[in-house]
Amino acid sequence: MTPRGRGAADASSQVPLSSSDARREPTHVPPLPQRITYRVAVDRAPGVFAAVVTAIDELGAELVGTDTTSQQRHVAFRDLTVEVRDAVHADEIAAALVELASVELLAITDEVLAAHHHGKIRVEVTRQVDGPRDLSLVYTPGVANVCRIIADDPAAAYRLTIKSNAVAIVTDGSAVLGLGNIGPLASLPVMEGKAMLLKSFGDVDAYPVLVDEQDPDAFVDTVVRIAGGFGGINLEDISAPRCFEIEGKLRQRLDIPVFHDDQHGTAVCVLAALMNATKVTGRELAGLKVVVQGVGAAGVAIVQLLRAAGIEDIVPVDIDGIVEPRRRAGLDPVRFRLARQVNPRELTGGKEVALAGADVFIGVSGPESLPIELVRTMADDPIVFALANPVPELHPDLAAGHVAVMATGRSDFPNQINNVLAFPGIFRGLLDAAATAVTDEMKVAAAEGIASIVGEDLAHDYVVPSPFDRSVVPVVADAVARIAREQGHVRPGSGGSLSTERLAAEQDAAQRAVQRAVTRRFHGH
Amino acid sequence: MTPRGRGAADASSQVPLSSSDARREPTHVPPLPQRITYRVAVDRAPGVFAAVVTAIDELGAELVGTDTTSQQRHVAFRDLTVEVRDAVHADEIAAALVELASVELLAITDEVLAAHHHGKIRVEVTRQVDGPRDLSLVYTPGVANVCRIIADDPAAAYRLTIKSNAVAIVTDGSAVLGLGNIGPLASLPVMEGKAMLLKSFGDVDAYPVLVDEQDPDAFVDTVVRIAGGFGGINLEDISAPRCFEIEGKLRQRLDIPVFHDDQHGTAVCVLAALMNATKVTGRELAGLKVVVQGVGAAGVAIVQLLRAAGIEDIVPVDIDGIVEPRRRAGLDPVRFRLARQVNPRELTGGKEVALAGADVFIGVSGPESLPIELVRTMADDPIVFALANPVPELHPDLAAGHVAVMATGRSDFPNQINNVLAFPGIFRGLLDAAATAVTDEMKVAAAEGIASIVGEDLAHDYVVPSPFDRSVVPVVADAVARIAREQGHVRPGSGGSLSTERLAAEQDAAQRAVQRAVTRRFHGH
Repeated sequence: MTPRGRGAADASSQVPLSSSDARREPTHVPPLPQRITYRVAVDRAPGVFAAVVTAIDELGAELVGTDTTSQQRHVAFRDLTVEVRDAVHADEIAAALVELASVELLAITDEVLAAHHHGKIRVEVTRQVDGPRDLSLVYTPGVANVCRIIADDPAAAYRLTIKSNAVAIVTDGSAVLGLGNIGPLASLPVMEGKAMLLKSFGDVDAYPVLVDEQDPDAFVDTVVRIAGGFGGINLEDISAPRCFEIEGKLRQRLDIPVFHDDQHGTAVCVLAALMNATKVTGRELAGLKVVVQGVGAAGVAIVQLLRAAGIEDIVPVDIDGIVEPRRRAGLDPVRFRLARQVNPRELTGGKEVALAGADVFIGVSGPESLPIELVRTMADDPIVFALANPVPELHPDLAAGHVAVMATGRSDFPNQINNVLAFPGIFRGLLDAAATAVTDEMKVAAAEGIASIVGEDLAHDYVVPSPFDRSVVPVVADAVARIAREQGHVRPGSGGSLSTERLAAEQDAAQRAVQRAVTRRFHGH
Repeated sequence: MTPRGRGAADASSQVPLSSSDARREPTHVPPLPQRITYRVAVDRAPGVFAAVVTAIDELGAELVGTDTTSQQRHVAFRDLTVEVRDAVHADEIAAALVELASVELLAITDEVLAAHHHGKIRVEVTRQVDGPRDLSLVYTPGVANVCRIIADDPAAAYRLTIKSNAVAIVTDGSAVLGLGNIGPLASLPVMEGKAMLLKSFGDVDAYPVLVDEQDPDAFVDTVVRIAGGFGGINLEDISAPRCFEIEGKLRQRLDIPVFHDDQHGTAVCVLAALMNATKVTGRELAGLKVVVQGVGAAGVAIVQLLRAAGIEDIVPVDIDGIVEPRRRAGLDPVRFRLARQVNPRELTGGKEVALAGADVFIGVSGPESLPIELVRTMADDPIVFALANPVPELHPDLAAGHVAVMATGRSDFPNQINNVLAFPGIFRGLLDAAATAVTDEMKVAAAEGIASIVGEDLAHDYVVPSPFDRSVVPVVADAVARIAREQGHVRPGSGGSLSTERLAAEQDAAQRAVQRAVTRRFHGH
């Protein structure tokens, strides 16, 4: 038996563990095991590897793969990849391996940490600079001409610099995932991840800009000062209600699109899913009665976008019940204005009032906060989007049989509402058009684009495309760029369409040349 | 004759032009012709292409290449690459081509603009995000663990984010090349070029940060707020004396290295060249009498670094003569302090006083500002670094026979002093060490590193390596990182050397495992 044969055999030895199902039941936390790789040196003797497998088994972990990295006469070096519940569980297994007499634990690798090692993005050059000629083209002295052209005509920066394709991912780290205000530096892995997604899905060059400033005005001043090099600003993980003020002021002061993804990316995806859920349940968008639970960044943006899409009967609720203008608790200026714009039936009271007879529940709030009893008071065939993550407002298993369309933010259930459906295509379209702003109409068009991908496959359990459906981005980008051009939110002279124009002009000129040549040849001119 | 054959033959037809030498003489501007490519449709008839060549020839331009892109029966499409003096010259040629009856001008491509099309850098991902597993590793939910680790221990950002390799190239666009204050946006092509050089030479991930703010304090506040995501700050093209204040305040407020390349990159290269020029003329560094002409960003930094390297007799001069404390003109606080620190012989008066008997002239000033008569008053075998660009203080052709070592900033003469010799290796070393600051000792070590590359090839016309000598960066980086570690300017726990430590620990553990296994096997334990 060759070492290679041994390794291959080991790699396929999946170890079934009787306890592996036990993890799923008690809570509704999604099963997201961490994968930890233990590098061990194992004596090559009968029963030794079996003891390793047993030790892992007895601790309720799953050995999902092994790989023999090298073998010597008496000892084999193996990588054991184990799915564990958490870091404590991982340490328990490490301790158990250390206890085994014929095993030496050499290293522990956390798959997630390995994926983040020294960062997830890089800056790359469009050409190597290998000699004086390259240097004179891309740097001095040639670059001086390029600078002069932009000094004379700032719009030329869209043709001659990375501004044409660059987005700043801007955060103060005040509302990072579910972790709260952990500050900008600790949020950097998220911002890099966002940059990865913008590149992988939208071919956008995005770079994180961490702004260590909690005062909204100083934050805005800072972003305004550094915005010039970018074609768009993606605000990320900024807490409400500060995010509303920050976004509003930046939109006023900048001539590039400013997009707070936690608000508007979510809203676009929700609207897309709602368009299809409405269709599959035989309703009309305009006639819907909608309850939006949670009036943080996402909730406020969802309410506003649903209004822009023509839905009138929207009732926002939060932990204190229906958000309405006469209520005292929790009404900052943004939410007060919101409360006055919606709720045409002027409902007051607890959320049970709002839900009675409602067609749609959209939750962007907290875990397990929608009792199934309240769902039973909704209209027939209710639509429930329970987007709290990782634990939804209502678990899909509990909802089964009570709702017509169920959507969550989770990848392990149908109808995953994931912002990656929206923001890469939206920024791609904004940059393609050299847009100066992003409008509600563009967001609605983006939602229509996402919804259209589902097409004839529309079903109760398929109202949004997969986040990994590569056909989404071009459709969304085209929709956004089209509206930008129709609405005139396009920078004059930026050359968004120049290359196309020039190509057409060249082809015309070429045809004229051929005509002239043929004419001269045959008619003696 | 096939079309391919025609094209190949055309491409090699270099057209010698009698007037091509005329461009070099009258001024001392370096011959940097622009290359313009004219795409033309040319009738396929005898004499037509000859007329094209003649038209270009008669306008004093040089046809450096032609390529036939396609042919039809009566017309050939050709790209004519022509070296022209400037944009006006390029237009004259275009007009002449349009005049020709059998030629249609289809398009004009400027080689420099083409090299800058839509920017010269890109953001790339370390892995594609192709499915839920990728997403869970690099984004939610896996990324939350990484954020928590950094929130608990900020130094972990050096292991788990791009901060470990990222440099912000920061400018206000106030002193861009020789173009003056053209503002940040118009400077972006230079900043992208700098990012290219940092990547191409130093494998540093650098991103431009344009700060649209001319007030030094507001500028500093802005940079401090956005610095967290970077492992270093490269200040670029900021006018003096503002650059001194800005750099000083940033160094005080930030715990990452701040390096104004226009100052210190130049100073390091000058010191490197001076070390070798001193050696080749049989002098000692400490005993030199040095005149530094120009007390802008580079001049001030050169004076300071030469002092740090042990040179005492330095006389700074500017357009008003010797810069000394009792003089009234042009003395801001920085230059006043400088004037009090140097000039131990307390010389006063015009620069002729300074130059009399001096060993070294270092010019970072204006064109043709060092008369050869003054060089004749210097010590025997004088060293002249005339670094004004593109027109040096003294043209090398004029200096020939009068100086022992001549250096300029130009690539068309020996001893080119180019910052690319310094900054990529310096930042590489700072990042490798996770340095918290950059010190004079690191700069001196960087200069020694550059000088050491010349080695035994040292000669009057070879005192610095070529800017494209790839052996420079690792030597400079090692020197800088070594001093950073010796001086303790290294972030604790940043893991600059962690991977090495871990590797060693793994190897030790593996050896112990083998020992144990062998012992058990043969001794029955």
